[in-house]
Amino acid sequence: MPRTDIPDIVIGRLPLYLRALTRLSKEGHDITSSHELGEQLGISSAQIRKDLSHFGEFGKQGTGYTIQTLSTELQRILKVDTEWQVALVGIGHLGQAIANYGGFADRGFRISHLFDNSPERIGKRVNGLTVTALDEMATVIEEEGIRIAMIATPARSAQQVADILIEAGVQAILCYAPIIISVPEPVRVQYIDPVIHLQRMSYYIDD
Amino acid sequence: MPRTDIPDIVIGRLPLYLRALTRLSKEGHDITSSHELGEQLGISSAQIRKDLSHFGEFGKQGTGYTIQTLSTELQRILKVDTEWQVALVGIGHLGQAIANYGGFADRGFRISHLFDNSPERIGKRVNGLTVTALDEMATVIEEEGIRIAMIATPARSAQQVADILIEAGVQAILCYAPIIISVPEPVRVQYIDPVIHLQRMSYYIDD
Repeated sequence: MPRTDIPDIVIGRLPLYLRALTRLSKEGHDITSSHELGEQLGISSAQIRKDLSHFGEFGKQGTGYTIQTLSTELQRILKVDTEWQVALVGIGHLGQAIANYGGFADRGFRISHLFDNSPERIGKRVNGLTVTALDEMATVIEEEGIRIAMIATPARSAQQVADILIEAGVQAILCYAPIIISVPEPVRVQYIDPVIHLQRMSYYIDD
Repeated sequence: MPRTDIPDIVIGRLPLYLRALTRLSKEGHDITSSHELGEQLGISSAQIRKDLSHFGEFGKQGTGYTIQTLSTELQRILKVDTEWQVALVGIGHLGQAIANYGGFADRGFRISHLFDNSPERIGKRVNGLTVTALDEMATVIEEEGIRIAMIATPARSAQQVADILIEAGVQAILCYAPIIISVPEPVRVQYIDPVIHLQRMSYYIDD
């Protein structure tokens, strides 16, 4: 059971720390500090130390963090020391791009099932997977015990798709459609919303 | 000139506040509170009040925030009270999906130019825009004074595309490719990284 006494905003920063650690490791570093991580991420070193202190003692005063150890711990905390099967629904242009996305490897997730309701897409192969009919989705999700799904359908279909996924056992949904979907507790939803990122940068534009 | 004394992590939360306010407004609300916003966003009300206090006095003790007023102020602060032209580079499956994305309207950005280097795509129409050759990109960006771009190319091309964009005057890049790109100060980059969102949710899965 996950601890619920830790603010979600703290949980939300852990993946950023993990990504920064992976990057430092690829650059050949073995050791880092809250200061160095903070510089990379635009987060104060005090905030990073405080966030990590929720989960134990990771660094040593004066010597910093061992990147490999801290990465392994963060993977365990975030439950990505395993590989989750992920269902992807909606195999139009966006869904095909997601199915071919190269950024999932070694980060805890693997797209394992593709679903669509269009007769031209059902049966089609995309990146080694066959597109399955939406009618069969609930059965497959239940049988495979899939807990995570991504929705890349048009906005008008997203809520209905979410309802089916949740009924079949999905607990976490990443929604690419530009619409807010309603889900019951304790199901989680996150949104891919490019405008949030654009607005964060437009603040700085010197026009 | 943007103020540089405000932490970027604070700037990064303002778009979330703006999106939540828009949602509340669409639901028919006129007034909200830091408590209500915090509930929606999983952020403490104290944090929200502290973030907003960087920019002045918006709420009244006991009566909360007028949604319309606070939205207008946040739009002005984030410089999305205007509409920015945005260049989109890479018109494969992903680029076509982005060009057709319905989430940009009334949020400060309009995709105005599409670029690709593939002969089959150049000249093609996507959502009312014609795909222009990559060779002409620098000239168009300069002439139109474009400051914001999105990169939806394969990872191997992203750095080269970014270099051309920045040389031509782009100051903010949203990168969909699964690669870290290097940019000179003061250019900003943000990444669309679905794994960051998935890892934030896997923490909570009760398997």
